[in-house]
Amino acid sequence: MFELIKKSKNSKARVGKLHTKHGVIETPVFMPVGTQGTVKSLTPDMVSEIGSQIILGNTYHLSLRPGVDLIEEFGGLHSFINWNKPILTDSGGFQVFSLSKVREIKEGGVIFQSHLDGAKIEFTPKSVVDLQRGFGSDIMMPLDICSPYPCDKKQVAADMKITHKWEQDAVDYWQNDKKGQLFFGIVQGGMHKDLREESAKAITGMGFSGYALGGLSVGESKDLMEKYIGYTTDFLPEDKPRYLMGVGLPENLEFAIANGIDMFDCVLPTRLARHGQVFIDSGRQNIRNKKFYNDKKPIDENCNCYTCKNFSRAYIRHLFIANEILAYILMSYHNVYYLVNLVKNIREKIIAE
Amino acid sequence: MFELIKKSKNSKARVGKLHTKHGVIETPVFMPVGTQGTVKSLTPDMVSEIGSQIILGNTYHLSLRPGVDLIEEFGGLHSFINWNKPILTDSGGFQVFSLSKVREIKEGGVIFQSHLDGAKIEFTPKSVVDLQRGFGSDIMMPLDICSPYPCDKKQVAADMKITHKWEQDAVDYWQNDKKGQLFFGIVQGGMHKDLREESAKAITGMGFSGYALGGLSVGESKDLMEKYIGYTTDFLPEDKPRYLMGVGLPENLEFAIANGIDMFDCVLPTRLARHGQVFIDSGRQNIRNKKFYNDKKPIDENCNCYTCKNFSRAYIRHLFIANEILAYILMSYHNVYYLVNLVKNIREKIIAE
Repeated sequence: MFELIKKSKNSKARVGKLHTKHGVIETPVFMPVGTQGTVKSLTPDMVSEIGSQIILGNTYHLSLRPGVDLIEEFGGLHSFINWNKPILTDSGGFQVFSLSKVREIKEGGVIFQSHLDGAKIEFTPKSVVDLQRGFGSDIMMPLDICSPYPCDKKQVAADMKITHKWEQDAVDYWQNDKKGQLFFGIVQGGMHKDLREESAKAITGMGFSGYALGGLSVGESKDLMEKYIGYTTDFLPEDKPRYLMGVGLPENLEFAIANGIDMFDCVLPTRLARHGQVFIDSGRQNIRNKKFYNDKKPIDENCNCYTCKNFSRAYIRHLFIANEILAYILMSYHNVYYLVNLVKNIREKIIAE
Repeated sequence: MFELIKKSKNSKARVGKLHTKHGVIETPVFMPVGTQGTVKSLTPDMVSEIGSQIILGNTYHLSLRPGVDLIEEFGGLHSFINWNKPILTDSGGFQVFSLSKVREIKEGGVIFQSHLDGAKIEFTPKSVVDLQRGFGSDIMMPLDICSPYPCDKKQVAADMKITHKWEQDAVDYWQNDKKGQLFFGIVQGGMHKDLREESAKAITGMGFSGYALGGLSVGESKDLMEKYIGYTTDFLPEDKPRYLMGVGLPENLEFAIANGIDMFDCVLPTRLARHGQVFIDSGRQNIRNKKFYNDKKPIDENCNCYTCKNFSRAYIRHLFIANEILAYILMSYHNVYYLVNLVKNIREKIIAE
């Protein structure tokens, strides 16, 4: 399913192809997030035009609304949202531990409260696979426990043990009927080298299609992130893809790829856009800044996206200040394009080495 | 500038071509409104793809924010907003009388308070032409007084007199230096037949490029609207275009065209979309309605727009309930497409008679 095409001579970077039932994904790859069945502020045509090869869906959100039954009635998530390329869905674990106030972890799964209506819902290793079968995801993820950071090492170890049991249950359940779906294991173990090693060894023994690095939140320093990537990838097989969950700021992508990561996702390009923040090679800027008042330049002079080919900073600033939806569209377009193509360019550089 | 190509045998409907410096507009025509320099929720590419031949801009809004100086610095509104087809700008009169709480009408113009920051601003017949020269509008509109409805007849008559004086000042000022811009006179006179006739005769004597029917708000009954159109169009020359300002609901377009109207604008297609309302041949519907929960049909089964070719009612309902911007994009696209093409089809029917 994963072809390792080339390894960089200068770093641990890799170039590959991941085969899914909705087509081939060239790695390294940045995956835009479509939390509730849409990459926020963009049409699927735009997401495709940007060059996105795969998008994410969130099992937590989609299972609460509109619900897996409706999505199944439409023949799966691809046809429901009109996206014919690969989709990866997460397990919902991250949202259970970040959005739900009440939750109870048991051996068999986790009970949480819907942030929409307070309903009590249980996710189990198998139910989360069933949900993702209903979505028809190309790549599924197993239920895991996301320990907070910082966190007592004993707690991290205990969470990890439960996660391993859950993942074993889930992978067994998947293997009974794969339906052409890929399934990635998640390595946990917090920031502890020994736990990471233990987790990687346990998870890689289970027969997943690829491996994700879990337990990282958005705010870590680069040093810490680099350590943590190394702690994990050192124990991952070369012939499977490696996915760094939730990471995707421009400043993180290049060094993470150099450390052997193949796949990234991040909600920030569209979220930042809604707050007026845009990616520029020289750093992140807020379009609201007065200095852009009469700036005729595009957001990024080196960018070939629809937004940068057609609109000035001054116009987008005007739209943003006037609360026009077009501002969110144009800035989301640019930010997603920026990340998707930043990773594409890194891929091409490795190929050209 | 205006070619009258055909008159219907069955009604007062007309088919024509209006030549502007940014191209030819085939009439009858529906003009989407881009209040603040964008047709809300749509990219200019989408507006063009929909088949829109011309869009509106609002002088009141654009002069307050971002201001005419900035727009001039960008070479006019077309290049500022990246729209290369014709633009009609209104005079700001309607907004002065609907949005501003404090206003003072004097012979020379009107002083009002900006709804943004409370600043006192004066619009005069000439200043409003200057603003629209700065925008580089293809079609300009003169400052007028929009009497409320219902309104004492004496007041309507008095407002009309001032409007006539303002329009004469404005048309003289325009004629000194036309810059390739068209200028439409506005006929006022409320719902009073004699005043309408008086106003039409006065305004048509001034040498404008076309004529608008002012003073109508969105809520009038069809009967009243029909009377009022007749009161005015009976006194308008055949060789000039006729623009029914602010009117454009599906139920109004056909009979207004049959009564000799050539041009329409309306903010409702995009505004209704943001409230979940969509146009369907069988009437207006709210996408939030529970009955659409698992409805696989497009918004309108007879529609060929991007939205209807690609997305189900159930998906759009899900997006709307989840507060996703894509809901506004898709519904605005459909609603604008619906009106633009409704008028196009009526035009083709008249040609085929």
